Amino acid sequence: MDLCQIGEFGLIDRIRKRFPPSKRSLLVGIGDDSAVLRPKKDMDILLTTDLLVEDIHFDLKYTTFRELGYKALAVNISDIAAMGGIPRYLVVSLAIPGGLDIKDIDELYKGIGILAKRFGINLAGGDTSASKKGIFISITLLGDVEPGIVIARSGASVGDSIIVTGNLGDSSAGLEVLKKRENAGRGYKYLKKRHLMPIPRVDEGRLLATNKLATSMIDISDGLLSDLSHILDESGVGAELFLDKIPISAPLRRYAARVGASPLRFALSGGEDYELLLTASKASTQKVVCSPLLTKTGVSVIGRITKHKGIKWAGDYKIEEDFLKGYDHFKKG
Amino acid sequence: MDLCQIGEFGLIDRIRKRFPPSKRSLLVGIGDDSAVLRPKKDMDILLTTDLLVEDIHFDLKYTTFRELGYKALAVNISDIAAMGGIPRYLVVSLAIPGGLDIKDIDELYKGIGILAKRFGINLAGGDTSASKKGIFISITLLGDVEPGIVIARSGASVGDSIIVTGNLGDSSAGLEVLKKRENAGRGYKYLKKRHLMPIPRVDEGRLLATNKLATSMIDISDGLLSDLSHILDESGVGAELFLDKIPISAPLRRYAARVGASPLRFALSGGEDYELLLTASKASTQKVVCSPLLTKTGVSVIGRITKHKGIKWAGDYKIEEDFLKGYDHFKKG
Repeated sequence: MDLCQIGEFGLIDRIRKRFPPSKRSLLVGIGDDSAVLRPKKDMDILLTTDLLVEDIHFDLKYTTFRELGYKALAVNISDIAAMGGIPRYLVVSLAIPGGLDIKDIDELYKGIGILAKRFGINLAGGDTSASKKGIFISITLLGDVEPGIVIARSGASVGDSIIVTGNLGDSSAGLEVLKKRENAGRGYKYLKKRHLMPIPRVDEGRLLATNKLATSMIDISDGLLSDLSHILDESGVGAELFLDKIPISAPLRRYAARVGASPLRFALSGGEDYELLLTASKASTQKVVCSPLLTKTGVSVIGRITKHKGIKWAGDYKIEEDFLKGYDHFKKG
Repeated sequence: MDLCQIGEFGLIDRIRKRFPPSKRSLLVGIGDDSAVLRPKKDMDILLTTDLLVEDIHFDLKYTTFRELGYKALAVNISDIAAMGGIPRYLVVSLAIPGGLDIKDIDELYKGIGILAKRFGINLAGGDTSASKKGIFISITLLGDVEPGIVIARSGASVGDSIIVTGNLGDSSAGLEVLKKRENAGRGYKYLKKRHLMPIPRVDEGRLLATNKLATSMIDISDGLLSDLSHILDESGVGAELFLDKIPISAPLRRYAARVGASPLRFALSGGEDYELLLTASKASTQKVVCSPLLTKTGVSVIGRITKHKGIKWAGDYKIEEDFLKGYDHFKKG
């Protein structure tokens, strides 16, 4: 059955049944002109939107519809996590070729549902359209957060530690593996999964925000150097990185050795890791690195904030020109 | 200058300067992972999203970028208006070909800015991406509304009047005129403007909601018959239409005569009028039709709610098969 047979309203009914409203605060859900939500008392609202475009952010040769739906929501949740908030409500804008099988759309919503269920997020509405030219998914996510604890990008101070959760570079290595269609290598499954189904660090962000442990925070979507530079720009400071402290997984180490590259190429400039990058005062750093939750996820002090602008590191690692700027979809070379 | 030269972050800076935050309740705006808003005390939140896809919803042969930006926001505001709410914050997801001139993007944001300014809406964030395949614009709009006054689609009762604001059919006639590239006809400018730059009925929706004058409401995006059927389905009732009461503008009358069609073809089935369609009890109907604001906008009682399901009318007007269902982008024929 394709979408032309079921129609837009048939599709809406189908989605509506899959996502029955599970929160009392969702007063009106899918099926009216707007959703109606009752905000939690004395909480601020977080609002973010992220867009995945076919042949720019994903290629159906490398991703299933389920993974695609999952990731479209994951990247948004990661933005809420990077502020220290709780994800609550999502709306989906979807443009899809009319001939697409309804099973594929079901799979896409199943992928969205995996993370929605995991984090208790309600589907509040959306818009679906035909597209003559590829798939376009934009998710807008609302979250909430206690007033005054949001972690912005602008709070880094000279002397602060630079800290990341998890491992870096896996996602971009995973994308390379997917593109090469190689399945045999040890740890390839791990790298691919890190690219296709990243786990947004919501609990970690909450812990850091509610305990006021971070002075600034961002999620790593464009690559460590690029995202760190956003913190530095907004805070008016610079950074020194400890290259030997950058957390690199064993599968990435093996993959990098196999292709004759430094794993730092992936870890410094590869995007889409969706780990948290934060700064913390000296006093807080110890609490961060000793937190059981963060220790379990993985947490590394990878540098410190300096007065001198720019990003420096000791040692002779030279970054390749192409990788210097992280991702910027519009910029050529 | 094209987008490849300015880059994504250059574009964000440009947009940021154009839309300085003007509300104290916008605690963090463009440029962090998420926006942070402080909801108004004791207000519910409205949330809606609408998507415009190139070659489905618009064609750059017929619309300027400014009109496109305007309309992308207008259709969202109309959804908030149809609930009786106040539009507050918007985020924009935009996918655009990399070679597009930055002036075009500026114009698109200028169009968004016209309505944002008019209704006091703040730009809270967005995501911009390259696209290899055409332009996609998805806007998500947050509004607020006093608890308990929202006008849903499900409240129509037998005996209620069916009422519309403004004139119907202008927009679809305007689209025909645009496609024919005819400029000479009297009133063509009016019809085209009604298609390209509809005025969302925010004040009218607020008046109806705050005075509890409507039992159900929807905005006319898919066409009168299609949108009325949403109200009927959700309310479990039917409708009788008074065809001679359907409000038709003089330019539409002239255009229909010129092309040898009944103006009802446009008024009943043509989409994108973005007028409000509502039902009201007998007692409220008089207040609605006598309201100075609604009289100024235009207000017509065009039918009544019946027990028998479906939509009926007296007289011998037969609707053409193709126009029966309003717009459904996926359905063929």
